[in-house]
Amino acid sequence: MPDALTQDDLPALALGCAVLGTGGGGDTSVEELAAHLALEACGSVPLLRLDELDPGDLVLPLSMIGAPTVASEMVGSGREAAAVRELAEHTTGRRVAAVMPTEIGGANGLAAVTWAAQLGLPLVDADGMGRAFPELPMVSFHVAGLRSEHLFLADTLDNRAVLQPRDAGWAERWARALCVASGSQALLCDCLLTPADEHAVIPGTVSHARRLGRAIRSADEPLTALVATLGAHLLISGTIDDLARDTHEGFVRGQVTVGGRGSNHGRRVSIDVQNENLVAREDARVLASVPDLITVCDTATAIPLATEALAYGQRVSVLAWPCHPLWRSPEGLAVAGPQAFGYRHPYRPVPHTERHATA
Amino acid sequence: MPDALTQDDLPALALGCAVLGTGGGGDTSVEELAAHLALEACGSVPLLRLDELDPGDLVLPLSMIGAPTVASEMVGSGREAAAVRELAEHTTGRRVAAVMPTEIGGANGLAAVTWAAQLGLPLVDADGMGRAFPELPMVSFHVAGLRSEHLFLADTLDNRAVLQPRDAGWAERWARALCVASGSQALLCDCLLTPADEHAVIPGTVSHARRLGRAIRSADEPLTALVATLGAHLLISGTIDDLARDTHEGFVRGQVTVGGRGSNHGRRVSIDVQNENLVAREDARVLASVPDLITVCDTATAIPLATEALAYGQRVSVLAWPCHPLWRSPEGLAVAGPQAFGYRHPYRPVPHTERHATA
Repeated sequence: MPDALTQDDLPALALGCAVLGTGGGGDTSVEELAAHLALEACGSVPLLRLDELDPGDLVLPLSMIGAPTVASEMVGSGREAAAVRELAEHTTGRRVAAVMPTEIGGANGLAAVTWAAQLGLPLVDADGMGRAFPELPMVSFHVAGLRSEHLFLADTLDNRAVLQPRDAGWAERWARALCVASGSQALLCDCLLTPADEHAVIPGTVSHARRLGRAIRSADEPLTALVATLGAHLLISGTIDDLARDTHEGFVRGQVTVGGRGSNHGRRVSIDVQNENLVAREDARVLASVPDLITVCDTATAIPLATEALAYGQRVSVLAWPCHPLWRSPEGLAVAGPQAFGYRHPYRPVPHTERHATA
Repeated sequence: MPDALTQDDLPALALGCAVLGTGGGGDTSVEELAAHLALEACGSVPLLRLDELDPGDLVLPLSMIGAPTVASEMVGSGREAAAVRELAEHTTGRRVAAVMPTEIGGANGLAAVTWAAQLGLPLVDADGMGRAFPELPMVSFHVAGLRSEHLFLADTLDNRAVLQPRDAGWAERWARALCVASGSQALLCDCLLTPADEHAVIPGTVSHARRLGRAIRSADEPLTALVATLGAHLLISGTIDDLARDTHEGFVRGQVTVGGRGSNHGRRVSIDVQNENLVAREDARVLASVPDLITVCDTATAIPLATEALAYGQRVSVLAWPCHPLWRSPEGLAVAGPQAFGYRHPYRPVPHTERHATA
């Protein structure tokens, strides 16, 4: 029986997207409600692999861009996805046959279900990041060398744009400029895909997110289950004892520090944030760094915490695990390695755990 | 013989555009050089009335948007006009038959000659302002009720955009956002015109600018000749004794004060600037205000001075004269009257001079 996403899948999917959000990608709770409404209307959204589509079909990867703190306060019009599809079909003269999340991590992974439901289209079980990243060029399409001739953008007020930037850097600058002008929130398709572009996506990430959420929800020891399902390293368990955040130019930037408890007493792990958790350090030593994934979870429930949901004194655990191999390629590191975020430290891959390596 | 613009016309046209620039619209000197080069290559640019075109023809009104201080430092690629024409023709499926300045005042009035020459097209003897204004919605197309479905924008780096904003306010916000992201400089077509849109343009302004420049250049007493040709009021002659300018969010904002000399000793006229001269005041009394025109000239030569060319101690004269009747309509004042610029004073039209009224 072909796979599909139903309302029953949404709580697990929301948790999984939040885990892969690595602190960013926006709070999933509003998008979970929106997805419930959309699936209530349409029943379910078929979940397909890219190669199950017809060769002539267009796939519409979609993501909201902007500040996560704004996303949880400014609700969309519900017309953005139709606007972007219309721009894409009018510009190319071709039919859009499926939606794909550009960014599985955070609110965007979940919102893609809503967009697919609104358009009456299936969802491709893949995304362009395998996680969340703060900038447009940090996407597998770009790393794999796909050239996005047009970008399609719609805001919550029915403003629409077709952009033809000269390169990925200008795509980011122009889309970000429109997004900030529109209140730091807009829906974007930054690269149309075809079924031939399988090398340019991170496959299976929608069902992976659902699996992560199920592990958290069904286990007696949710943190242990999540660590095992992810193949993650537990960097520290403790309490948040320092927290600084600032929303500026469409980004949330800041730093969070976790002080160890119990056997970890005296240890302190600090995490740099630019929408997502970028680098985890203990003293001067880098424990984990982009493009590898770092997530802060509630220690008791393993519920992953978005940057804007963190609070002083919270009991949290910090997990880190390896990114998709595409991000460890020279092209991937150039786009989303430490240097791409302005850091000087060399990238040292978070090792695969034994369990994960043999899974 | 049909009228045309040749290299011989450029010095006068540049002066006239600067007069109509009312301090803004950018310094004309760089654009005068560019127009010389363009006309050297193509000979001359035919100057037509809108009704001389075929009914099915499209007219491309063009203007650079951005900060004038940037415009005199960042030279275009020379490919912007072709890019905007291509976007317009691709989007509409129709042929562009002529160029028109969106803004006759300042650099844009002169640059339109270059764009027409580059595209091998005639120039329409009209514009959308009859002067210079700092914001996109302050254009006769908008006042006359034309709805711009698409905006076409190209920057100096070959980035291109087709915008579909919901209204004129969002057209301004989005185009300005891209312009600022591109270094405060971009070429824009904010409304395609047809020959049927004559009610929506300010007619004859290209030849009027040339006439003003000829008056300044040929007279023994240039200031007297300019005042007479404009039908202007001389508000004060004196020296600049206070000057504040700031470039921010794509605009030059500031204030300039002229202290009277000779028989005007003790008088002080101050002018508010937002790219253009907006309001002239003596003490608390408004002498002249947008949408009427206020220009600061060198007293000896009558050469009009752009905001960024003003300097402390300069001997200048301040002229004010009536705007086109379209700007005095309720629709015109709503768009470009004092309130549109955040002022509270009511609009009191600068009266027509006797000479002008009987001309």
